[in-house]
Order: sequence, then structure tokens, then C-alpha cells
Amino acid sequence: MKSYTEYLWFNTPERFQIINITDKVQEIVTKSKIKEGFALVSAMHTSSSVYVSDDESGLKRDFQDFLDVLLPPDPKRYKHQHGADSNGDAHLRSILIHHESIVPVTNGKLDLGPWQQIFYGEFDGRRKIIGE
Amino acid sequence: MKSYTEYLWFNTPERFQIINITDKVQEIVTKSKIKEGFALVSAMHTSSSVYVSDDESGLKRDFQDFLDVLLPPDPKRYKHQHGADSNGDAHLRSILIHHESIVPVTNGKLDLGPWQQIFYGEFDGRRKIIGE
Amino acid sequence: MKSYTEYLWFNTPERFQIINITDKVQEIVTKSKIKEGFALVSAMHTSSSVYVSDDESGLKRDFQDFLDVLLPPDPKRYKHQHGADSNGDAHLRSILIHHESIVPVTNGKLDLGPWQQIFYGEFDGRRKIIGE
Repeated sequence: MKSYTEYLWFNTPERFQIINITDKVQEIVTKSKIKEGFALVSAMHTSSSVYVSDDESGLKRDFQDFLDVLLPPDPKRYKHQHGADSNGDAHLRSILIHHESIVPVTNGKLDLGPWQQIFYGEFDGRRKIIGE
Repeated sequence: MKSYTEYLWFNTPERFQIINITDKVQEIVTKSKIKEGFALVSAMHTSSSVYVSDDESGLKRDFQDFLDVLLPPDPKRYKHQHGADSNGDAHLRSILIHHESIVPVTNGKLDLGPWQQIFYGEFDGRRKIIGE
Repeated sequence: MKSYTEYLWFNTPERFQIINITDKVQEIVTKSKIKEGFALVSAMHTSSSVYVSDDESGLKRDFQDFLDVLLPPDPKRYKHQHGADSNGDAHLRSILIHHESIVPVTNGKLDLGPWQQIFYGEFDGRRKIIGE
């Protein structure tokens, strides 16, 4: 099996941040020269997720609103301790949305539907983050 | 690496529709002659998901009821704009349930537990949909 | 493609049980002699999930609390029938958290972030369970 691994680093100025990484993943697929297979896009933080959706600004706000209601970013609500405070909301969001996505590669291209884009979602940003 | 890709099309008369695609995926695995590996079943719509669960009619209704409470199908609640109206609920459901599932293949068979079946869930149907 | 499959069995004395299986998965990766690729960790029950998160006791309680609110373990709330009673909550939790996770393998090691661990979550335990 041919395989190729690359690590990506992002800076996230906001605590909640959604980054469209489709072009970066396609570049890596092109560099790998893999024609048929898949790209495993896997976050390396326990407070972030990788998912596939539409790149539309209203939808990103809907996603944030939805998570803010379901898992409010209020440290007092969580038992999880992380240094001085709790970021339990970000960890539970990461479990819920999953740390990884797999995208098929066909003829050297990410085989996405017409509206599908790959997103890195950071739920406890304001620090360097890493994806693979 | 041996790989084989096939695209499936479904017609979904209902807006919310769950389709058991296990047999179709097994047929494709058989056709591929792959003995050891996995099947990546990936939806190509941003309003649909692929997941593994039990094929039981009560459970399908539970799943719909759960999503209807969590993400009500009411366009006014969402900022996402899609043509004339909003289908934000369907997009968020797709993110939540994920667009893809991976199923191990052992000795040419989908290596599922005794109750596991593969489902395509369309959350904004009434049009042609595609899976891979 | 080189591949290697192993089945794991767990006993779960509690109905809701989270098991850190990272070491077991790493052992299997080592045994497989696979250097570059990935590990597909797939639950074979329709009432369980595999996910990646932090191994912290407060977070595990947050996760249980979150699921208990979102999908209360009350058979009367679900239409799903399973033998004498309903375990619809466990099935919906399994769909939501997904039955499988994929972890990259680089140079023979699970390529996890510093806090990432692999968990098997059983939502209807008190019986033998199996993972692959």
C-alpha cells in the first residue's frame, strides 16, 4: 500500500473556529501521487473535529448556535478539569462530531459531492492546533 | 492497493428517508474481489449521512423523533440559505451523523456484528441522491 | 495491501461503560507489523461506539451526563423493541457517536495527539461485547 502522511498546523484566534481545509488536503493528495484510495483527515487535539459539509456562512453560524445550546461553553457545567478551568464543552463537541473524516480519492482527486468541503472545527482554540 | 469504486443513486420520495444499503454494499464488495480490507461508504450530499445500526422499524422512528426534537425541520430556525428556503436542519443532521462509515471486510464479506446493517439517511430528500 | 484483523472481547459489568482500548489496539498494530497505514477500530454491537478523546475521569462523567440528558435511559420513551424491553437509548447513542474510529499509523505507532486515547463505549452492557 502506498501511503503519505503530512501534518498541518493552524493558528486559531477565536475559541470556536471553522477552517475549510479542502484545498490543503487536495494539495497533499496531489503531492502523494495516490490515484485511487482515500484521505484520512484526523485531528490531533481532543477539542477539535474534522467533518464534511457545505461552505456557507449561515450554516457555520447555525452549527455554532446548535453546539452552544447543546453543549454550552460554560466551565461550571462540566466536571472535566483542564489546568485552571474546564473545557468539557470542547471535548464533548469533539467526541460528538468525531476527530476524523475519510474522503474517497478517485483518479487523484478528492471524490466529494458538488457541495462537500472538508472542515477542521476547533472548539477550544486560541492556540496552535495540528491536523494530519 | 486494490481498490474499486462504484456510485449508487437513490430516489427518496420522503424528505426524511432511511435506506438499508447493506446488500448493495456487499454486492459491490463481492464484485471488487477484495478479500481483506474495508468498504468506505460515503454520501455525496451535504444533507445526508451513512451510519451503521439495527434494522428495526421502531428504532427508525426513534431516530427520526430524536432528530426532529434536536434539529427541528423548521426553516425559520436556521440562518443557512439554500435557494428559496433553508434546509439547515438537514445539513446539521448530516454533520452530526457524519457523511461516511467504514466497514471492515474479512474474507470477502462485510464484517458486521449480527445486528449491524448499513444505512443511508437522507434528511432533505424528494430528489435524486447519490452515494459512493 | 497488508492487513490484519483481530477481535477483542470485553465484559461490561455496568450498563454504561467506557473502556480505554488504546494499548490493546497498539499491541495489535505492533503484531501486524504494519508500519504506515491506519487502524480501523469497529464495534460489532449496535449499542456501542468507538471514539477518540482524553482519558480523564471528569470528562467521562460529563459524557455520561450529556448522553443521559440527550437520550435518557428510559425504555418508555422509545419505540424500539428489543426482546422484553426497549434499549432505544443505547442504539441512538451508538448512531450518534458512531460505531467506528480510524486512527492513522505512522512508523508502526498509532499516530495520536498527546491527549488522544481510543475508547470503546458500551451503552447497553452487562453482557459480553466484541470489537474488531
